[in-house]
Amino acid sequence: MPVGTKGTVKGLTPGDLRSIGAGVVLGNTYHLYLRPGADLVREAGGLHDFTGWDGPMLTDSGGYQVFSLAKTRSISEEGVEFVSVYDGSIHSFTPELTTRVQEDLGADVAMVLDECPPAGVDREYQAQSLRRTARWAERCKVAHGKEDQALFGIVQGGLFADLRRESLERTVAIGFDGYAVGGLSVGESREEMLATLAVVAPELPADKPRYFMGIGDPVGVLQVISLGVDMFDCVLPTRLARHGAALTADGRINLRNARFRRDLGPLDPECGCEACTGYSRAYLAHLVREDELLGHRLITLHNVYFMTHLCREAREAIVEARFEEWSRTWIERFHGS
Amino acid sequence: MPVGTKGTVKGLTPGDLRSIGAGVVLGNTYHLYLRPGADLVREAGGLHDFTGWDGPMLTDSGGYQVFSLAKTRSISEEGVEFVSVYDGSIHSFTPELTTRVQEDLGADVAMVLDECPPAGVDREYQAQSLRRTARWAERCKVAHGKEDQALFGIVQGGLFADLRRESLERTVAIGFDGYAVGGLSVGESREEMLATLAVVAPELPADKPRYFMGIGDPVGVLQVISLGVDMFDCVLPTRLARHGAALTADGRINLRNARFRRDLGPLDPECGCEACTGYSRAYLAHLVREDELLGHRLITLHNVYFMTHLCREAREAIVEARFEEWSRTWIERFHGS
Repeated sequence: MPVGTKGTVKGLTPGDLRSIGAGVVLGNTYHLYLRPGADLVREAGGLHDFTGWDGPMLTDSGGYQVFSLAKTRSISEEGVEFVSVYDGSIHSFTPELTTRVQEDLGADVAMVLDECPPAGVDREYQAQSLRRTARWAERCKVAHGKEDQALFGIVQGGLFADLRRESLERTVAIGFDGYAVGGLSVGESREEMLATLAVVAPELPADKPRYFMGIGDPVGVLQVISLGVDMFDCVLPTRLARHGAALTADGRINLRNARFRRDLGPLDPECGCEACTGYSRAYLAHLVREDELLGHRLITLHNVYFMTHLCREAREAIVEARFEEWSRTWIERFHGS
Repeated sequence: MPVGTKGTVKGLTPGDLRSIGAGVVLGNTYHLYLRPGADLVREAGGLHDFTGWDGPMLTDSGGYQVFSLAKTRSISEEGVEFVSVYDGSIHSFTPELTTRVQEDLGADVAMVLDECPPAGVDREYQAQSLRRTARWAERCKVAHGKEDQALFGIVQGGLFADLRRESLERTVAIGFDGYAVGGLSVGESREEMLATLAVVAPELPADKPRYFMGIGDPVGVLQVISLGVDMFDCVLPTRLARHGAALTADGRINLRNARFRRDLGPLDPECGCEACTGYSRAYLAHLVREDELLGHRLITLHNVYFMTHLCREAREAIVEARFEEWSRTWIERFHGS
């Protein structure tokens, strides 16, 4: 899912996203609640009408941003208090509020409010936290009334296998339209992340979508797919683009590198996107060096296309029962080994 | 002519420009010579191939930037020495060099190297300068060898009617494919500018294109058209867009203004561009306030569309012999009077 943090996937129009074949687009409740405000988005007919994206859309609950961006906060049974990154004003999120805000935003999928503790907090904290997150999840489900909007629960529990199982059981017991794995990819090693996911993923209901929150590098995406994940989001492809870095079948390249200055070949010879079929590496490198908007736009377009295309290939490989081999070959080439 | 200073009209693709119906796109020799270099552009097959714009293209000679951007310089009969705005390196432009560079860039129209003195220099300086510019123009014509590229002369002479006539006679005597009026819109009043243009325009050859360099506000464009000008360029529409300002039939509006925050109407109700038909003022205002790339992109698209459409209407009005009335009505409405 390309991330449209503030109601736009950086530099791309809905038409671009359609031409790419993007599926679900993600919006951030934290940002949209503060700017331009959920009441305005509701008045505009919801995020679809406001942004012009008529495809599927998912909003997070804002919990992750509260815990990762906010300068100060207090957490209680009731909810979480935080300081806006925009203007220092103080706000509270409760399960009821974030549910209502997401109903106002009107995405197709809403998420429960969860606490996302940073890597390294102790077992006792994780245990208390996941139980509160489960109680919050229950309140979200009770508060949720929008019938054409799915609501997903979130499994927490840090790196502790038994706590993950406890969180999963509590969340599944409440019953949601889909299940996310949160609290990973927050500072732990990739090995720890995958080991923890390997505990949770097989026990998630097989007939509901499984969403791994916050991974977007190509190899990571293939790794979580191999563990049974269906959905994932990350700002990485769009953020990389703004720094001049492009994803290609032969690995990540940075167009600020001197070797691309006179390279008249395409960005990624195997890619069919507008950036790769219409321009040379030399032109894109020129745009990036001059900090031209078009450079950001075209590389963002490519990176989102690249990830969308990768996932489409993964899906085909799964259907044809050749995912493991395809994925291994792909990762080896991407790593240049 | 939308300005693609560094080989890109800020944020827009050639496809956007085609969909807008843009005609000639302008490139800046000064910038392209320094970054990425005319040799690279030539190697890429010229500006058309390098940028992907297959419509008509014009490059200036770089003279204007040398005289307006460069920190220090010396002017001699041979040419002009200047300091690069990019890295402080020292370069020289001669009529022969800028002609060759423009041949390398490969635009459809090239311009002679001229000196563009600032407003307020004295009569004696203007007289000496226009004569040197005429000698440079002659050298450009001699140096120019690219048969599928037009070469335009430039009339200088400041605000002195007799000097303008002298410059015009000298330039026309050399013989070019088109004629530009330079050295106006450089700090003098609009009245002085139009009065001076009124001296020159009627005496320019009627069978060659007339290009007024450096005007791009809607009213100014209509004013110079009424004096017989065929072509003009200015960064104003694209620069305004980056500051959140949009051109509309009812005047210029700035989307940072609080009154647009909750305005769910279209940017310009009479405009058919992608920004006006696909999004609300409230959404665009949100993008502008959040400094989102898509905001710059969509408002740039609108402003360029607006100017292109205005010129198309002007052309129709001229053909139907109702330009003066149409133009007067248009200006009154734009000014809100």
